[in-house]
Amino acid sequence: MDGYEDFEEIHVKEVYIIDALSDPTPVVLLENEKGEMLPIYIGHLEAMSISNVLKSVSHPRPMPHDLLIDIFKRMNTKVEGVLIDDKIDQTYYARLLLRKGKKTMQFDARPSDCIALALRANAPIKIRKKVLESSEIDASRLEGARIMTLF
Amino acid sequence: MDGYEDFEEIHVKEVYIIDALSDPTPVVLLENEKGEMLPIYIGHLEAMSISNVLKSVSHPRPMPHDLLIDIFKRMNTKVEGVLIDDKIDQTYYARLLLRKGKKTMQFDARPSDCIALALRANAPIKIRKKVLESSEIDASRLEGARIMTLF
Repeated sequence: MDGYEDFEEIHVKEVYIIDALSDPTPVVLLENEKGEMLPIYIGHLEAMSISNVLKSVSHPRPMPHDLLIDIFKRMNTKVEGVLIDDKIDQTYYARLLLRKGKKTMQFDARPSDCIALALRANAPIKIRKKVLESSEIDASRLEGARIMTLF
Repeated sequence: MDGYEDFEEIHVKEVYIIDALSDPTPVVLLENEKGEMLPIYIGHLEAMSISNVLKSVSHPRPMPHDLLIDIFKRMNTKVEGVLIDDKIDQTYYARLLLRKGKKTMQFDARPSDCIALALRANAPIKIRKKVLESSEIDASRLEGARIMTLF
């Protein structure tokens, strides 16, 4: 996945529940090579889906992301990568990059779905450097807010 | 979608929250031509996804089922139908039927994901007659259990 010079690779560090909003909300915490971190609020189902991969737990029935991966396999389609490329009004935007043969396709998607798919496919997650810079947080701020590790 | 003689078509009547379990749980209520009904417990996200189609509401960001439909469109793949074909230990099993050109593919999936996709694609939902017969319930039993219409 070349040609994205204004992006850098980022990894999933953890998924947990944070108490920063009125209701406890799941967060996926991303971290780059330099240890810079970015938390993204996500849904409960998506958190479980991401956490399942991190903990090598498989759900007894296929979750939507498992179904997608099944479909990609049967259609000879590869998850080439994921781009977290924008943040507007506290909402992060991402793109899912699929490759079939020589054809690459991009799909508008939520970061949580993209991350859940990238982890299942061992595909890189890249974030626009500007988005990371504008939203990066200090790890110490998270320690206080974290209330429980998910699942 | 022919060749499924032991199946019959069923429609989504409603999605709502039911108080039959310890926690209020979303239910998708299916109904056949004769008015026979079958409730299936589903997740909150799936309930919202199905309800969005019934009420012609679109989510500001693509939900997993919207992403799947986007992918199918771009890959010239059609949702041919959905088969709810088994029930084991209170869990319903379903298959998603996709067609690309002359090739039909079947995927193991949850009924909730299948229904959410079928509604988006205007594809038929079929249920094995035996499964409906064994689980069909009287509508009057639902009235008392229903605590709120979803969304």
